[in-house]
Amino acid sequence: MSGVLRHELQRCERATDAGGGGGRHVGAPSSTGAAIDEANRVAVERMAAVRPLLAGVARAGDVIPGLRPGMLLHAGPPIEWPRASGPLRGAVIGALIYEGMAADAAEAEALMARGEVTLEPCHHHSAVGPMAGVTSPSMAVWLVEDAAGGRCAYSNVNEGYGRVLRYGAYAPEVLDRLRRLNEEVAPLLGKAIGAGEAVDLRALVGEALHMGDEGHNRNRAGSLLLLRALGPRVPRVAPDAEAAAAALDYLGGNALAVLNPLMAACKLIADAGHGVAGSTLVSAMARNGTDFGIRVSGLGDRWLTAPSPVPDGLYFAGYGPADANPDIGDSTITETVGLGAFAMAAAPAIVTFVGGSPEEAVGATLEMYEITVAESPHFTIPQLGFRGTPTGIDVRKVVELGITPRINTGIAHREAGVGQIGAGLVRPPMGPFVEALKASATALGIVG
Amino acid sequence: MSGVLRHELQRCERATDAGGGGGRHVGAPSSTGAAIDEANRVAVERMAAVRPLLAGVARAGDVIPGLRPGMLLHAGPPIEWPRASGPLRGAVIGALIYEGMAADAAEAEALMARGEVTLEPCHHHSAVGPMAGVTSPSMAVWLVEDAAGGRCAYSNVNEGYGRVLRYGAYAPEVLDRLRRLNEEVAPLLGKAIGAGEAVDLRALVGEALHMGDEGHNRNRAGSLLLLRALGPRVPRVAPDAEAAAAALDYLGGNALAVLNPLMAACKLIADAGHGVAGSTLVSAMARNGTDFGIRVSGLGDRWLTAPSPVPDGLYFAGYGPADANPDIGDSTITETVGLGAFAMAAAPAIVTFVGGSPEEAVGATLEMYEITVAESPHFTIPQLGFRGTPTGIDVRKVVELGITPRINTGIAHREAGVGQIGAGLVRPPMGPFVEALKASATALGIVG
Repeated sequence: MSGVLRHELQRCERATDAGGGGGRHVGAPSSTGAAIDEANRVAVERMAAVRPLLAGVARAGDVIPGLRPGMLLHAGPPIEWPRASGPLRGAVIGALIYEGMAADAAEAEALMARGEVTLEPCHHHSAVGPMAGVTSPSMAVWLVEDAAGGRCAYSNVNEGYGRVLRYGAYAPEVLDRLRRLNEEVAPLLGKAIGAGEAVDLRALVGEALHMGDEGHNRNRAGSLLLLRALGPRVPRVAPDAEAAAAALDYLGGNALAVLNPLMAACKLIADAGHGVAGSTLVSAMARNGTDFGIRVSGLGDRWLTAPSPVPDGLYFAGYGPADANPDIGDSTITETVGLGAFAMAAAPAIVTFVGGSPEEAVGATLEMYEITVAESPHFTIPQLGFRGTPTGIDVRKVVELGITPRINTGIAHREAGVGQIGAGLVRPPMGPFVEALKASATALGIVG
Repeated sequence: MSGVLRHELQRCERATDAGGGGGRHVGAPSSTGAAIDEANRVAVERMAAVRPLLAGVARAGDVIPGLRPGMLLHAGPPIEWPRASGPLRGAVIGALIYEGMAADAAEAEALMARGEVTLEPCHHHSAVGPMAGVTSPSMAVWLVEDAAGGRCAYSNVNEGYGRVLRYGAYAPEVLDRLRRLNEEVAPLLGKAIGAGEAVDLRALVGEALHMGDEGHNRNRAGSLLLLRALGPRVPRVAPDAEAAAAALDYLGGNALAVLNPLMAACKLIADAGHGVAGSTLVSAMARNGTDFGIRVSGLGDRWLTAPSPVPDGLYFAGYGPADANPDIGDSTITETVGLGAFAMAAAPAIVTFVGGSPEEAVGATLEMYEITVAESPHFTIPQLGFRGTPTGIDVRKVVELGITPRINTGIAHREAGVGQIGAGLVRPPMGPFVEALKASATALGIVG
C-alpha cells in the first residue's frame, strides 16, 4: 500500500472514530467514516429491497433505451475498437453479419475501422451480457423488472457452452443457432412467461443456492427451476409439439439458460444501490476483455479501470493458458450482489469445472465476508448454517485488507472466431479500488 | 451388548485374525472372518455393477410377478391385518375403494376382516413402495431394469406431500387425484420414456447428490433432472397441450416425483447383493408401520424384525409426536444402498425439512462410514471431497459398534385417513441386527 493511500485510510479511520458512539451525523467532516457507513447501509438496504421478476422476452431494439440501428452493446467498461480483444472482435463481427450489415469478417472489420458502428457498454443501457456481451438491435433479450415497479433491466439469450458468439465465435452454424434461439425459442419462452404468474428470480436463485448453484458459472439447478416454472406453460403457447419440445430442450439442455435473466436481475439489484452520495460500495464490476472496470455507488457513472487479468482455470482438451484472453464479460454483476464466487461455498461441485477444491470454495466465500458490509437476507448458504452471502463490496475494506473480490469466470480464446476454451477463477487488479478510494476521499473532502 | 453376543463377535474377530495376511481362503473354519469379508466384497461389487434404467410405466397387475386380483402389496416385512397400523389400514381401505372392491371404509374393513384380500410385501414381488406402499393391480408402476439385462423392479407413482394414499388418506379427492395420476399422467410419462433413450437412474441420482439431494427425503434436483430428461419428449407424445402441461407440471411440481423410480432402482441394486453365501450385509431395510425388518444377504429370504420406532422430526402446523405413527415404508431401500441419511452430507438444506443442523447432516454420513464396508463408486459427495457414499451395511459392524443405520423419513398420522404430518430422522432398533449376527454365526458354523 502506498504512503499516500495509507494516509488517506488513516484519515478515514480517524473520522470514523471521531464520529463514534454509533452516531450517524451525516455530512460533518469529523464523522465522515460514520457517514460513509450510513451511506453504505442505505445502498445495501436498497439493493435488498429489489424483487426482480422475469417479465418477458422482446427484440432488443424495441425495448433497450437508446439502442438504435448501427449501434452494438458490449460487456465491460467503454472501449474503442482498436483496443478490442479477440473475443470481442469476433462477437462484433458475428453481430454485424447477424444484422446483415456485413457479409463476412473482412467487411465487418472494415465497417468498424471506418467508425460506422457505435460501440457502447451494455451497462450504459440498463443491460448486461456475459462474456463479449455483444447485443445488437434484432437480437432477443430477457426483460426483468422490479416488482416495486418502474425499473427494467435486460440481457441477451444464452447460447450454451463452446463455439458461441459471446466467446467470439461467428461461424455460420454459430449464427444459425443464435438466430433459431432469438427468433423461435426465446419468443416462445416470452409467451410462456406471459401465460402465467411472473417468475421471481430472487426466490429462484435463493432456491438454486440450496441446490448447489452459485448463480454465475454453475446455474444447473437454476436453469431447471426456470424449466419447472415455464415448462407446463410451453405446450399451451407453442404453435406445435416440435416448437414446444425445442423450447423445453433449451431450458433443460443449457445449464446456463438462466444465467442471462439472472444477470439482468443482478443489474436491477446493483443499480438500486448506485448513486448514494458518500457510499463506497461497488455497484458494478465488468470486463471488456481488455480492461477490468468498476463503478462505485457514490462516484457517479465514471468507470475506474485497469488491465484485465487472465483467469486461472481448467482448460478444454487441446487448450492452455497461452490461448486465453484476459477476463471478459458483465457476468461479474453476480459477484457484485453476492452471488458467483461470493456464494461458492454453496456450490462445492463447481470445482470440477473451475478448479480448486471444495474446501477452497468455502474459503472463497468466507474471505468475501471480509470485504463486504452485509449478508444477503435472500441468498443463504446451507453449508454455512444458512448464513447470508457476503454482499456490498466496500472499496475501503478491499484496499485496507488488500483483498480483491473473487470472480468465477469462463475463459475465451484470445483470437476472434474460436470460442470458449475453459473456465476458472480470477482476481481483478487492485488499481481501480485504490483509485475509487482516492476519488471517494476527494469527493468527501477528506483530501482535496 | 450381551455376553453371548460379545463371545460370537470375538470368535468372528479371532477368525478374521487367523485368516490374516490378506488371504482369501473361503470356507475353512479358521478363516471365517476373511470368508465373510470376501462374501461382503462380492455383494458390494455386484451392487456396484447394477445400472438401473427407467424403462417404462405399466399397470401393476400386468407386470409385477405374482400380483393377482384380490391381492394388495404393502411396504415392509409381512404383516397380518389385525396388526396393521393406521396409515397402512387407511391405504388398504383407499386401495380397495380404488379397485372397486369396496364402496367405503366399512366395507373395506369387513373384507379385510374376513380375510378375503391377500396382503403381501412389495419386497416379495420385486417391488418397493414409500410409506404404506400399498400397490393394487390396477395402479400404475414405474418399470426399472438393469442395463445388464434380465432383472426388473417396480414402484408405484408418487402423489406428492400431505393428504395422500401412501400416508393413509383415502378421501374421494385423494383417490380422484391418484386415478388421474395413474390413468393419465403416468401412462403419458411412460410413452415419453419409450420415445427416447433410457434414463440412467444411477447417473441421475449421482448428479442430484451434487445438487443438494440425498435421494430419499430430498429429491428436488432429481425430480427436475427427470423433468429435464423427459420434458422435451412429452409434447411429442401427448394427445393435446393440456395433457402435456399436466405431465410437465407433475414432474416439476412434485419434488418427490423421482423418489419411486429411484426406489425401484435401489431395489435392483440391493437385490443384486442379496443371496451371497456368508455375507453379513444388509440387503433390505423396510417398515410396515408396526414392525421394522431387515434381510441379510447370506440369510436367505427371512425377515429379522422388531417394533418400528417413532421418528424424531419436524411436524406440520397442528400436529406433534403424539399424533405420529411408528416409522413406515420401503423407502429405506435408499439407505440400504448408500443414499438417504447415508448421503445426507450432500444435502445440507434438508435440515429445514427433517430437523437437525447442516453439521449434523455431515456427521450422519461420517458415522455411516463406520458401519459399512465400501464407498460408492457412483454416488459421491462434493462436500467430502467427492468421497463415495457409505455403502454395504455390515451387521457385524452395527452390533460391534452399537451404531444402527440412520434413516431419513416422512411421518404419517397414526390414524387411518389423515395423511402426512411431518418428516424427520429415525434409528431402527438394534434387535434385528443382533438376531442377524447370531443367525449368521449359526449359518457359518461358528456357534451351533
